[in-house]
Amino acid sequence: MRIVVIHGPNLNLLGVREPDIYGKLTLEEVNQRILDLAQELGIEVEIVQDNSEGALIDAIQRAGAEADGIVINPGGYTHTSVALADALKGVSLPAIEVHLSNIQAREQWRQKSMTATACLGVISGLGADSYLLALRGLVSHLEGRGT
Amino acid sequence: MRIVVIHGPNLNLLGVREPDIYGKLTLEEVNQRILDLAQELGIEVEIVQDNSEGALIDAIQRAGAEADGIVINPGGYTHTSVALADALKGVSLPAIEVHLSNIQAREQWRQKSMTATACLGVISGLGADSYLLALRGLVSHLEGRGT
Amino acid sequence: MRIVVIHGPNLNLLGVREPDIYGKLTLEEVNQRILDLAQELGIEVEIVQDNSEGALIDAIQRAGAEADGIVINPGGYTHTSVALADALKGVSLPAIEVHLSNIQAREQWRQKSMTATACLGVISGLGADSYLLALRGLVSHLEGRGT
Amino acid sequence: MRIVVIHGPNLNLLGVREPDIYGKLTLEEVNQRILDLAQELGIEVEIVQDNSEGALIDAIQRAGAEADGIVINPGGYTHTSVALADALKGVSLPAIEVHLSNIQAREQWRQKSMTATACLGVISGLGADSYLLALRGLVSHLEGRGT
Amino acid sequence: MRIVVIHGPNLNLLGVREPDIYGKLTLEEVNQRILDLAQELGIEVEIVQDNSEGALIDAIQRAGAEADGIVINPGGYTHTSVALADALKGVSLPAIEVHLSNIQAREQWRQKSMTATACLGVISGLGADSYLLALRGLVSHLEGRGT
Amino acid sequence: MRIVVIHGPNLNLLGVREPDIYGKLTLEEVNQRILDLAQELGIEVEIVQDNSEGALIDAIQRAGAEADGIVINPGGYTHTSVALADALKGVSLPAIEVHLSNIQAREQWRQKSMTATACLGVISGLGADSYLLALRGLVSHLEGRGT
Amino acid sequence: MRIVVIHGPNLNLLGVREPDIYGKLTLEEVNQRILDLAQELGIEVEIVQDNSEGALIDAIQRAGAEADGIVINPGGYTHTSVALADALKGVSLPAIEVHLSNIQAREQWRQKSMTATACLGVISGLGADSYLLALRGLVSHLEGRGT
Amino acid sequence: MRIVVIHGPNLNLLGVREPDIYGKLTLEEVNQRILDLAQELGIEVEIVQDNSEGALIDAIQRAGAEADGIVINPGGYTHTSVALADALKGVSLPAIEVHLSNIQAREQWRQKSMTATACLGVISGLGADSYLLALRGLVSHLEGRGT
Amino acid sequence: MRIVVIHGPNLNLLGVREPDIYGKLTLEEVNQRILDLAQELGIEVEIVQDNSEGALIDAIQRAGAEADGIVINPGGYTHTSVALADALKGVSLPAIEVHLSNIQAREQWRQKSMTATACLGVISGLGADSYLLALRGLVSHLEGRGT
Amino acid sequence: MRIVVIHGPNLNLLGVREPDIYGKLTLEEVNQRILDLAQELGIEVEIVQDNSEGALIDAIQRAGAEADGIVINPGGYTHTSVALADALKGVSLPAIEVHLSNIQAREQWRQKSMTATACLGVISGLGADSYLLALRGLVSHLEGRGT
Amino acid sequence: MRIVVIHGPNLNLLGVREPDIYGKLTLEEVNQRILDLAQELGIEVEIVQDNSEGALIDAIQRAGAEADGIVINPGGYTHTSVALADALKGVSLPAIEVHLSNIQAREQWRQKSMTATACLGVISGLGADSYLLALRGLVSHLEGRGT
Amino acid sequence: MRIVVIHGPNLNLLGVREPDIYGKLTLEEVNQRILDLAQELGIEVEIVQDNSEGALIDAIQRAGAEADGIVINPGGYTHTSVALADALKGVSLPAIEVHLSNIQAREQWRQKSMTATACLGVISGLGADSYLLALRGLVSHLEGRGT
Repeated sequence: MRIVVIHGPNLNLLGVREPDIYGKLTLEEVNQRILDLAQELGIEVEIVQDNSEGALIDAIQRAGAEADGIVINPGGYTHTSVALADALKGVSLPAIEVHLSNIQAREQWRQKSMTATACLGVISGLGADSYLLALRGLVSHLEGRGT
Repeated sequence: MRIVVIHGPNLNLLGVREPDIYGKLTLEEVNQRILDLAQELGIEVEIVQDNSEGALIDAIQRAGAEADGIVINPGGYTHTSVALADALKGVSLPAIEVHLSNIQAREQWRQKSMTATACLGVISGLGADSYLLALRGLVSHLEGRGT
Repeated sequence: MRIVVIHGPNLNLLGVREPDIYGKLTLEEVNQRILDLAQELGIEVEIVQDNSEGALIDAIQRAGAEADGIVINPGGYTHTSVALADALKGVSLPAIEVHLSNIQAREQWRQKSMTATACLGVISGLGADSYLLALRGLVSHLEGRGT
Repeated sequence: MRIVVIHGPNLNLLGVREPDIYGKLTLEEVNQRILDLAQELGIEVEIVQDNSEGALIDAIQRAGAEADGIVINPGGYTHTSVALADALKGVSLPAIEVHLSNIQAREQWRQKSMTATACLGVISGLGADSYLLALRGLVSHLEGRGT
Repeated sequence: MRIVVIHGPNLNLLGVREPDIYGKLTLEEVNQRILDLAQELGIEVEIVQDNSEGALIDAIQRAGAEADGIVINPGGYTHTSVALADALKGVSLPAIEVHLSNIQAREQWRQKSMTATACLGVISGLGADSYLLALRGLVSHLEGRGT
Repeated sequence: MRIVVIHGPNLNLLGVREPDIYGKLTLEEVNQRILDLAQELGIEVEIVQDNSEGALIDAIQRAGAEADGIVINPGGYTHTSVALADALKGVSLPAIEVHLSNIQAREQWRQKSMTATACLGVISGLGADSYLLALRGLVSHLEGRGT
Repeated sequence: MRIVVIHGPNLNLLGVREPDIYGKLTLEEVNQRILDLAQELGIEVEIVQDNSEGALIDAIQRAGAEADGIVINPGGYTHTSVALADALKGVSLPAIEVHLSNIQAREQWRQKSMTATACLGVISGLGADSYLLALRGLVSHLEGRGT
Repeated sequence: MRIVVIHGPNLNLLGVREPDIYGKLTLEEVNQRILDLAQELGIEVEIVQDNSEGALIDAIQRAGAEADGIVINPGGYTHTSVALADALKGVSLPAIEVHLSNIQAREQWRQKSMTATACLGVISGLGADSYLLALRGLVSHLEGRGT
Repeated sequence: MRIVVIHGPNLNLLGVREPDIYGKLTLEEVNQRILDLAQELGIEVEIVQDNSEGALIDAIQRAGAEADGIVINPGGYTHTSVALADALKGVSLPAIEVHLSNIQAREQWRQKSMTATACLGVISGLGADSYLLALRGLVSHLEGRGT
Repeated sequence: MRIVVIHGPNLNLLGVREPDIYGKLTLEEVNQRILDLAQELGIEVEIVQDNSEGALIDAIQRAGAEADGIVINPGGYTHTSVALADALKGVSLPAIEVHLSNIQAREQWRQKSMTATACLGVISGLGADSYLLALRGLVSHLEGRGT
Repeated sequence: MRIVVIHGPNLNLLGVREPDIYGKLTLEEVNQRILDLAQELGIEVEIVQDNSEGALIDAIQRAGAEADGIVINPGGYTHTSVALADALKGVSLPAIEVHLSNIQAREQWRQKSMTATACLGVISGLGADSYLLALRGLVSHLEGRGT
Repeated sequence: MRIVVIHGPNLNLLGVREPDIYGKLTLEEVNQRILDLAQELGIEVEIVQDNSEGALIDAIQRAGAEADGIVINPGGYTHTSVALADALKGVSLPAIEVHLSNIQAREQWRQKSMTATACLGVISGLGADSYLLALRGLVSHLEGRGT
């Protein structure tokens, strides 16, 4: 089983960027936790980060050809990007959207997710754990457990 | 560590109610999975279900006095209940909101969660796994892991 | 054939409460007319009234187990209650929503019915007759006439 | 007692037009049921159908001069026509608005009725029975029963 | 100088229709006052009334070919009719919109005039005088006085 | 009969200010036409201009004590001033609101008149004639003609 | 003279719940102040608290039968509850709505009170004094002073 | 193959009406181009123009009985007419909506098309060519090419 | 202790202006009651009334320099005046906003108070008592009672 | 004559991506049809596809320097991209926007096109034919036919 | 060259009023910096401050007669005042609007500037420097530099 | 002191693109003026232009590591880009947003700046001078002058 984890814009600033909201872990530390859990779960994980909407669409399309599922944090593109949602709908993989912060408890324009309309589910507000739980949830879904 | 899992209105119909949306597991089966995981994680879990908004507020207030955290699926009260959000803010416990279905991908009036504004995070769209992941996430948060 | 008639909040005040809008018949008089018509139509009718949203959900769920159809006046819960609409969708019975007054001709916030989205049809503005016509319509529907 | 039944635009297509929504009865069959019930109730009924908003206003004005009540299905004009609502208010007859489908459970722009603001009540979602129940309700109203 | 006065839907009910709002003068009496003033001002006036939007568009187009200006009360079509506004813009005549009642002081959906966007000016709230003042204003405009 | 004509903010710039919209006549020329017509109609007219909302309220209140009617162009205060509307409602005089330009055909935020809700009627778009027609209309109203 | 004071959801948490917003007095202390003032004013006061919307409707209906006025803090139900507003309109007692915090200065969805539409007046933002002033105001109103 | 081309309100003014927006070709010249292309494509074309919404509905219904496809320019009815959309849905023919001007680049209330919801596609902004391309597109669709 | 009571626009018309809404007491009578209560409470009160927004800002600024608290009825400026709210925030005094009528039960545009966002609390709907209770509440607040 | 055809995000997935909506032709097949038609029309066509908004802006700017017209399907960027609209306005070429599906008949947020405000016209809903008709329309426009 | 600097409501409180938002400089200190820069730039500057909207309109009109440009901080009138915008449009001078704080980053109702629609440009968020930069920008504009 | 000036999409078209709105200076000429002023102020300036949102985020992040402040014109991304705003918040530098045109006086969807919420201030409408004044303002801010 192969899962692609896609980090959207500004997530490379993690640990530095508004730590009160996004936590003090760097992206490298978050990624290490993801890889550790992948090993524990016996799955392959590929991790991508990009600030460009187009590059994220490319990554989703590549995942569509090579992987079994997607964990994606679309960052600031979450709220308006029809193109990312179309890409997620366009490939045939289950995807879970994650957010470090609880977007429903922040500014009004962060409360609506356009990309989530193309996902299986959403996990938000749990910091780095949002990614880890999404990985567990996606594996459980792909193995037909959970429902 | 003691966690209260609160099921809101109509969740007692689980398995029967619109199974295409909410899945085929009954509430008993979901609860059994929750209890199994609790045992695995070495924590105590109390489970409550009620159709009445007032009774759910009572349950949250009781949890505030007796537990360390809350996992709550506010069901149809999610989208409008200021009183439930006030109850969650009124007690000093971390809470994770869960939904069986992905509310961001459903009718427009299901996309906004009033109660989530008073929660640590939200997990939706993963069926029974939404509860299990919430339990894991809450334990990780209470143990100071995750961030 | 067994039909449950559910009166929502404040309908126990009927005859006293704003009679210019809701008419001068008391709830007892309305119920008597319903029972008379039930006898004429040869059907069983059970009548419930409650001011609590949770108790109304309970009543809908009980009807789902024991009856063939529902006539419901959700009163003030009509306009916002996702939980009542979910309960009506959760049971497999045809339901007709009734209102004593013509809600489309009143305050703007009374013009939208959330609960009607889960009903077969709506009858409003005809006072006690709204109930009687709903009973006739529901029987006709259950007998396969009408369409 | 004389009642005018007014069918608005596209109702002449009944039985052919989107039968999943509007049913399989043709307009002739619906009209026959209306006339049968009229005979049973001992009243006179005149039936009109027109696709033109102006012709429907003319029909309402004529009813104002010659009849005791109006049953009207304004079809697609329901949601925007101030002129039809003004006509209904301009004549001194009680009117009941009917719809074959449950407009509160359809597209958002079908949920608001402009014309209903000028009516005694509304009956929707019960197919041909919507007309029959409206006829019964109007007779009951004109005979001073019902309230 | 030739002016066409166009009365929209339901104005043929004048005097009967909601006299508290629209006054007790019949359309014939209003028209007589218009004709008297026309004679006083030494101009020709043609008066049209129709309940059909299409017929009103026809009347505007005919006026475009045969007259120097238009006084129009679009009645219930005022608030939504793009087609009437397009007709007024399509002919090259100055037009004044009139209303018997003060539409800015009535229901919210009467406060916006779509047709007025295609007119020189609007006179409302002065009953039959709205027409007479519009006639005076239009003559003054056509004679190059007024500005 | 005594009528107060009240010019709101920036009307002292008339003739200079955006002449394509407001015309080339100066305020003095407009006022002269008003006084000429007053003489013709055999009435007394007092004319006030002020840029201050408070001073305009004062003027309305003085008119309430000393005059029979008000013609008012509230200028830029038209669209938002609850206080001016309250003043007009607070005195017991009929008032006609006038505008030089057709506010329904301008920017969206000019299309709603808050002050008109407290007036008998509105005349707009006819330049200086708006005032003259308002004067005629008000005299006709006060003399009981017009309706 | 007998007045019922009704505390809505979460007010039993007073003193503990978000003390920066709601103050440090417990509900018992607030109630004691109310009872002290009642004694000073020579009136009878009954105090009710409940988290359930239905129970609050029941309390209003009981007050309608046994008391002369109502002081009510509808808590989180303030902003959406048509049913509570209907109950207040349904009984024939003057009611004053109170809030500990100034709801007009808080989140947007707290600024609108649905229940206040059925009350004589509203007092907010003065902590426990909101209740005491409401009691004084209600007594003054019932004794015909104040206006 | 037989196609009906339906011109809505004010299109009979073409060439005269706002030529900067709608072009200088008259309706006759546009129709001649349509007929020339029909001959080139070897299909039958019938052309209708009417200013009345009801007559346009009649035309659509007639086309439903006698033709294979519809090209329609609903003119000013485009933006609000539920009845025209219902007529298009009610007949079983593919339809293409055309506009001479680019409605997405004009006033906000011209940007939404109600009737397009019932069409196969929309072509706008290309003047008379909008009709010619629609004819080509419809023929291609009916012949199973294009997809 | 010194408190400034500020009456906004049109309050000088009290007793005359729409007495059904604002009561029959004149401003002088209201002021006398305020002064009587001030004497009873042993505090100094200064009373100001002005129709001008600018003069009310001046009064607030003067109060900021010379008084301990403000009771203000901003009248028609309540709903839109950012400048008055800024003035209240700009001085460091507690202020209570009062209204004679219950603004939450009136027209929609009266339900939002812009100025209340800068106040300690709001008292509305209790006629002259609104002022008296505000005075009591402000004194209690300044003396550190109430919370 | 040289025309650039620009395919936006996710169009490289054509044939695979949601074929019920976007058809079964691959992008290569669509492009071949475009090139065949170009040859038939005797024009040069260059075809570009990119998932990145910035790259699409670059392509428009290059077309501005080297081509005579643009056919563009902005995909998911259609609905929000001010930058793409600015690019289209910034170059001096006529452009036609195309969509495979009928965007006016899909989700509400697909019904508004931001980019179309900078185009000559729009063709949607006709699958691959949308491109072919756009090519024909653009050539006709550039040759001065069509209007 | 002569420029008028106009300070709107509450700016006389500068240094005292919410210093976290508006800074600690008093109005006198800000004015001194403006006068120093004027001397450096070799231009004449007149400075006005007033809390009254009417007085600010008067000041703009005077500037229109006596100066070459305007720097204006409309304070709380920025967001709603049509009358101030009309005054700025009514005089023929270039004006630059300034704000001490960044209004686009504050409350939603501060983000829209009505008055800016009548200005050359806007400078906000730079404290006293907003004025100084506006002065420089205005001089550059008047001298024909800058573009 | 080192400042990065970032030009967003389409600014490379400057001088060619809609010169009535954006002026006749080319980007090179604007940049030369910026560099001249930088030399005059004794600071280092780096200038970047890119059409890609992702590349602009990269540029902001690089500036965060290497510079003391940012001057940014986000072009068409201004109004919707959460990702750019997040990048600006994510780095710890003061930023000033500039626009050549006065965005508050243009189309409604250009009036809101999403990116400005993450900036110190905004300067718009002054053409190339917007950049120069921003540079001055930023230097003044970094040197602790200005407030």
